[in-house]
Amino acid sequence: MISALMLLVTVWSMATPKNEDGSRLWLRLEKTNTTATVTGVKCTAMTELQSYWQGGPVLLKQKKGMPADAYAIKSEGMKTVITAANDAGLLYGAFHLLRLQQTGQSTTGLDISEQPAYDLRILNHWDNPNGTVERGFAGRSIFLNPDPERMKTYARANASIGINGAVLNNVNAKPEALTTENLQKVKVIADQLRPYGIRVYLSINFASPIKVGGLKTADPLDADVVSWWKDKVNEIYKMIPDFGGFLVKANSEGEPGPQDFGRTHADGANMLGKVLKPHKGIVMWRAFVYAPQSPDRANQASLEFMPLDGQFADNVIIQIKNGPVDFQPREPYSPLFTSLQKTPMMVEFQITQEYLGAANHLVYLAPMWKEFFGWVKPASLKAMAGVANIGDDTNWCGHHFAQSNWYAFGRLAWNPNLTSEQIAEEWLRQTFRPTPQPLPVMEGSGHTQGSELSTPLSHREGSGESLLLDMMLRSREACVSYMMPLGIHHIFAGTHHYGPEPWYSPKGVRADWTPPYYHKADSIGLGFDRTLTGSANVKQYPEELCRLYNDINTCPENLLAWFHHVPWDHKMKSGRTFWDELCHKYDEGVREARSFLVVWDAMQPYVDQQRFDEVQRKLRIQARDAEWWRDACLLYFQTFSHRPIPQDMEHPVHNLDEMMKFRIPISMYENPDCGYTK
Amino acid sequence: MISALMLLVTVWSMATPKNEDGSRLWLRLEKTNTTATVTGVKCTAMTELQSYWQGGPVLLKQKKGMPADAYAIKSEGMKTVITAANDAGLLYGAFHLLRLQQTGQSTTGLDISEQPAYDLRILNHWDNPNGTVERGFAGRSIFLNPDPERMKTYARANASIGINGAVLNNVNAKPEALTTENLQKVKVIADQLRPYGIRVYLSINFASPIKVGGLKTADPLDADVVSWWKDKVNEIYKMIPDFGGFLVKANSEGEPGPQDFGRTHADGANMLGKVLKPHKGIVMWRAFVYAPQSPDRANQASLEFMPLDGQFADNVIIQIKNGPVDFQPREPYSPLFTSLQKTPMMVEFQITQEYLGAANHLVYLAPMWKEFFGWVKPASLKAMAGVANIGDDTNWCGHHFAQSNWYAFGRLAWNPNLTSEQIAEEWLRQTFRPTPQPLPVMEGSGHTQGSELSTPLSHREGSGESLLLDMMLRSREACVSYMMPLGIHHIFAGTHHYGPEPWYSPKGVRADWTPPYYHKADSIGLGFDRTLTGSANVKQYPEELCRLYNDINTCPENLLAWFHHVPWDHKMKSGRTFWDELCHKYDEGVREARSFLVVWDAMQPYVDQQRFDEVQRKLRIQARDAEWWRDACLLYFQTFSHRPIPQDMEHPVHNLDEMMKFRIPISMYENPDCGYTK
Repeated sequence: MISALMLLVTVWSMATPKNEDGSRLWLRLEKTNTTATVTGVKCTAMTELQSYWQGGPVLLKQKKGMPADAYAIKSEGMKTVITAANDAGLLYGAFHLLRLQQTGQSTTGLDISEQPAYDLRILNHWDNPNGTVERGFAGRSIFLNPDPERMKTYARANASIGINGAVLNNVNAKPEALTTENLQKVKVIADQLRPYGIRVYLSINFASPIKVGGLKTADPLDADVVSWWKDKVNEIYKMIPDFGGFLVKANSEGEPGPQDFGRTHADGANMLGKVLKPHKGIVMWRAFVYAPQSPDRANQASLEFMPLDGQFADNVIIQIKNGPVDFQPREPYSPLFTSLQKTPMMVEFQITQEYLGAANHLVYLAPMWKEFFGWVKPASLKAMAGVANIGDDTNWCGHHFAQSNWYAFGRLAWNPNLTSEQIAEEWLRQTFRPTPQPLPVMEGSGHTQGSELSTPLSHREGSGESLLLDMMLRSREACVSYMMPLGIHHIFAGTHHYGPEPWYSPKGVRADWTPPYYHKADSIGLGFDRTLTGSANVKQYPEELCRLYNDINTCPENLLAWFHHVPWDHKMKSGRTFWDELCHKYDEGVREARSFLVVWDAMQPYVDQQRFDEVQRKLRIQARDAEWWRDACLLYFQTFSHRPIPQDMEHPVHNLDEMMKFRIPISMYENPDCGYTK
Repeated sequence: MISALMLLVTVWSMATPKNEDGSRLWLRLEKTNTTATVTGVKCTAMTELQSYWQGGPVLLKQKKGMPADAYAIKSEGMKTVITAANDAGLLYGAFHLLRLQQTGQSTTGLDISEQPAYDLRILNHWDNPNGTVERGFAGRSIFLNPDPERMKTYARANASIGINGAVLNNVNAKPEALTTENLQKVKVIADQLRPYGIRVYLSINFASPIKVGGLKTADPLDADVVSWWKDKVNEIYKMIPDFGGFLVKANSEGEPGPQDFGRTHADGANMLGKVLKPHKGIVMWRAFVYAPQSPDRANQASLEFMPLDGQFADNVIIQIKNGPVDFQPREPYSPLFTSLQKTPMMVEFQITQEYLGAANHLVYLAPMWKEFFGWVKPASLKAMAGVANIGDDTNWCGHHFAQSNWYAFGRLAWNPNLTSEQIAEEWLRQTFRPTPQPLPVMEGSGHTQGSELSTPLSHREGSGESLLLDMMLRSREACVSYMMPLGIHHIFAGTHHYGPEPWYSPKGVRADWTPPYYHKADSIGLGFDRTLTGSANVKQYPEELCRLYNDINTCPENLLAWFHHVPWDHKMKSGRTFWDELCHKYDEGVREARSFLVVWDAMQPYVDQQRFDEVQRKLRIQARDAEWWRDACLLYFQTFSHRPIPQDMEHPVHNLDEMMKFRIPISMYENPDCGYTK
C-alpha cells in the first residue's frame, strides 16, 4: 500500500514551492508570454489585460449612462466584452476577469454585472511627514519617497479590489500638510495613482490658517480665514484637478477645531465644504470625540453630534468609527449610525491592527466588519473608509495574512453583502495558490492541477482542505477570547495598545485613558454599567435594542461587560458563573491560537518556505501572547473576584507581579519584534 | 441548597492557614505545654519526646545485643516502651513515635520492630570552602558559619529519617580540607551533630600530601606519603573520635589520583583504608570515571574497575552512581552493580536536582530510586549515599517539595522496600497538614478534624484528595517526558545543566561534554548505539538483560535511545513511528507540568499563603520550562528527522534560532530565579 503518509513525505522533501516575499500581494499572475488580443478603449484596463490575461480576445467598450465604476462582463463566443461608463469601470471589470482566471474559475459563458455599493471607497493612511506611521506596523510610510514601481503595485492592488481614494496623511495632521512644498509631493503621488482610478485626499489641521497662513485666527466664520482656505483649495486644484477633499479630526484628542473659536462642528465642516464645493471636493468630518470629564466616553459623540443633525452641507460626510469607543476587538455599533437621521454618514473601519495584535497576530477582520453590517444597514451609509495597514515592509502589511484585511476592506466597500468566507477564499486562492509547481495528490482526493478544485489552500465543502479558511474565519473570535471576551474592552497597555495592562493607571493620566475606567473591576463584578440606571448609554440605541441591552438577562453575552457591571456569580447561558465563563473564554482563546499553529504547520508542503517560515514565526508569537493575555487578565481580575480558576482548564503559568513589572519597549509607531517571551 | 461551592468559597476567604516559611521542614510538631513523662535512658530521644510527645508515658530502655540503630516500640497498657541497643536506636524509635502522632495514626497497641537496611546512610554535601555549593540550588553552604539552631534542625531532620552520616565538603575537594584550621571547624560541626547520631566525613584531595604536607609526591606506595596520611588521620581522630572516614573522587574529571603515580584505584583506596582501619574509619572510593578518548563513556567505569574486583580492603566501599553516565532523569543502572562480585559497593543517588530542573521543578525522586532497586537488589549493597540538596535558604532546599527528596532518601536508606507512595504520603501529612486550623468539610466528605482521614493533602483510597500525592508520583515521569523521553540523555545546556541545548557543541570542548555525543541525531535516527554491533555496552549487563537491551524490538521503550540509534520511522508499541512518539512524549510532559498547576491551585484553601505562593511560582516556571524543552528538542531534532510535528498535539510556540541564541545566565552554583520567559 502506498499510503497517504508516503505521499506527504515525498511532497515534504520535493515539492516545496519557490520562495516568495509577499511583495506581489494577491496579484500573483504571471506575465503572459504572448500579448493577449485586447481591443477597444485604450486605458489601464487594456495594459493590465495585455500583461496578464491568458484567455481569448477581450473588447473594452465604453457605454454612457452606466453608473460610475460599474461594469458588465459578457462572453460573446470566444470573445469577452467588458462594458463600463468610465475607465475605472473598465479597469474593475478587467481585474474581475483576471481574478476569475487566477482563482481557477471558469472564464467562459460569463454574464456579469457589477456596481459598487459606495461611490467612495477610501483608505486612510495615518502617515506622518517624518515617515512614521501612527499605529502602522509594517515599516515606514510608502509616501515619503514614493518609489514608482511600488506605487504602481499599490495602485494596482487597490484597483483590483475597487478602492478609489487614499487620504495620504495622518488624521492627527501637521499644518505643514498644506504648504506648497508638501502639495508638490502630493501632486507626484496623485499623478502616479490617477491611471488606476484613485483620487488623493488630505487630512488637514483645522488651525492651518494660523500655522501655515500666518493669520491670527482659524475661526471658520472669519472672512480672512474663509478667504485663506479658498486660496489654498484653488492652489491644490490647480496642481491636482481631481483632488478628493479633506479629512478632518477636529476638537478631538487635543487637535484644534471650530469649538476653539466658539463654533460648532457644523460651522467648521460647512465652511470647508463650501470652499471645496466648486471643485467637487468633499469634507469627511470625524465624529471621534470624547472628553476627559465625561463619565462615559461612549456617550460623547452623540451628545456633540445629535444637536447638529441636519445642519451639515451636502458635500460633508460625518465619518464615524464602527464602535462608540475605539476600534476594540469587539464593540457594539456606534449609536450615531442609527440616531443621525438627516446627516450623510460613512463608517471608519480600522484595517491596521492597533488593538488586535499589531502585525504579529493573524486576525482576519471581515467577520468583525460583517458584524457591524448586521447592525447598520449598508444602504444607510454614503461611503466606507479604512485605516490602512500598509507600510514599506517588503510584504506591505507586516504579516502575510494582514494583506487579507486590506483585500477584505476593498471587497466589502464594493459589496458589503459578500460573505467573510467568499472574500477569504478569493484571497487565499490568489495569495497562496502555488504556481507553477504541480499540486500533490491529497489524502482522500484524486484532484490534480488545473481543476478548479485542486488547490489545497482553498475552501472545499467537506474537505480537510478548508482548514486554512476555517482558521481565518475563527481568528477574530479567537482574538476577542484571549484579549477581552464577554464585552470587556480597552484594557490595553498604556501607549502601544499591544499587550494587556488592565492594571495600568499611573498618577496624572486622565481616567479615560486607563483600563480601570473601562473594566471597573471590584469585589462585586466586572464591566461598565451603561444601563438606564448607569451611564444610560443604552438609551442612544433604538428602543428595541435599548431594552435588549439594558437587561442583563437578554443582553448578548459577548457584550455583557460592555453594558453591565456583571456580578462575578452571574449565571451564564452555559450554566457557569460569569467568573468561570470568563476564565474559560480566555483559555479557549489560547487554545485557538495554538490550534492555528497546527493548521499552518500542515500547510508546509504547499507554501513556499519563506512565507511559511514568516507566518509560522508570527503564529508562535501570537500563541505566546495569547497565553500572556490570559494570565495577565485572569490573575489581575482574580485579585477582585477572589474566586479560583476553574479546575477544568489550564492554569496561568506567569506571575502577576512579574507581568505588572514588564513593559514592552515599543511606541505607537512600532511593531514589536517578538512577543513577551524573549 | 448549601452547595459544596459555597463551602469552598467560605473556606477560601476564612480558613487559610497561618503563613509558614518551610524552615521547620517536616518537623512541624508543636511543643507540648506539659512535659511528657519520659523515663529511662537519658539521651536525645528523651529530650525530643519531652518536647513534642503528646501521648502517655514513655520508657526508654537499653538492650544489649540488638543490632546497632535498630529499635522496638511496644505498648504496655498506657505506657509505650522503646528499646534499642544504643542512643541512636532510641532516637530513631522516638522519631517513629512522633511520626505516628504527627501523621494522625494510632499511637496505642503498638508492636513495632525496625532495623535499618544499611549501617551507613550518608549525605554527601558538595560544599566548597568559599560557601558555594556545587549543583546546590538552595543558597550557600550551611557549614560555612554553622548556626547552632540551624545545625540542630539539620541534625533532628536527619535523625528523624535515620540518616547517620554527612560528608561535609565537595567531592571535588580542595586540599585545604585537611588543614588543621579546617579540621577545627569540622570538629565544631561534629560536636553539634553527634547527639543526633550523625558522624562527619570528609572528601579528600588525593594530592593532599603534596599540597598540604609539602611532600614531593602523593604516591600511595611511598612511605612518606603513607606516614603523612597516618599523622593526618591521627590528628583528625584526636579532635573527632567518631570521625567517619574519607570520600574520594580520584582520577576523575581532572581530580588527582593514584593513576597519576602509576598506581591503581585499589592501591590508592587500600592505602587510605589501612590508615583509617585502626580508628574504624572507612573509605568511600567513587567509581565515577570516564575519559575524553572513550567512544562510550558508559563503558568506562567497568573497564577501570572490573580488573580490580576483589582487590579492595574490607573498609573500602566503591561508591557508584546509580546510572552509568551521570544522574540523568532516566538511566539504566550502572552495570558495575551486577558485574563486581567481590567488592563492597554503595550507591550514590543525587538528591539535588542537577539534571532535574534544579530547585525550580517539582520532581519527587523516590520513583527514580525505586526504579534502580528494581534492577539492583538492595541486599547487594553495603550503604547508600545521596548528594544533598541542602543550603542556607530559609526553606533548606529551595523548593518546598524538594524537601521530600531529602526525606525520601533517608527513608529509603533505612528501608528500600518502602514504596514511593508510602514515603510521599508520610511526608505530605507531616509537611502540609494544617495546624491548628480546623479542616473544612470537603465536597462529598463528612470528615472533620482529628480523624486520621481528615487531612485533604494525604492519600485516601477513592478520594479526590489523593491528587497531590498523585502529582508527586507522576512528577518524575513528567520530567523525563518533557526533558528527554525514550532513553535520550545528557542533552543539557553546557555548564549549568538546567535547560535544553541538544545543539551545544562549541569548538574545543571535548566531545563527551557535548549533547551530540549522546543523542547522535542524524538523518536516519536518534540515539546511542550501545548494542553488540555498536559500543557493546549491553555486554556489561547480565546475559538476559543484554539480550533484552540489544534487540530494538525487546528493549524497553523508555530506554530505547539509550541503547539504540533508533530510526525515525521505527514502529513503536503505540503504533506510532518513533518520531511521532517522541513528539507526543514531549507534549505529554508539557501537559503534565501544566496539570500540576491545576492540582496545586486546588490546594490553596488548605495550604498557608506563603508556601502556596512559593510553590505556585515554581510550578509556573516548571510549566514554562517544559514548553521550552519540548520546543527546543523537537525543533532541533526535526532538523534531522525532516518529519512534521503530528497534527494531534500542540505545536512548538518558540523559534529554534531564538532558542539557540539564548543562554541562561547561571553557573553550576546557582538556581535560576525564573525560567526562560522573563
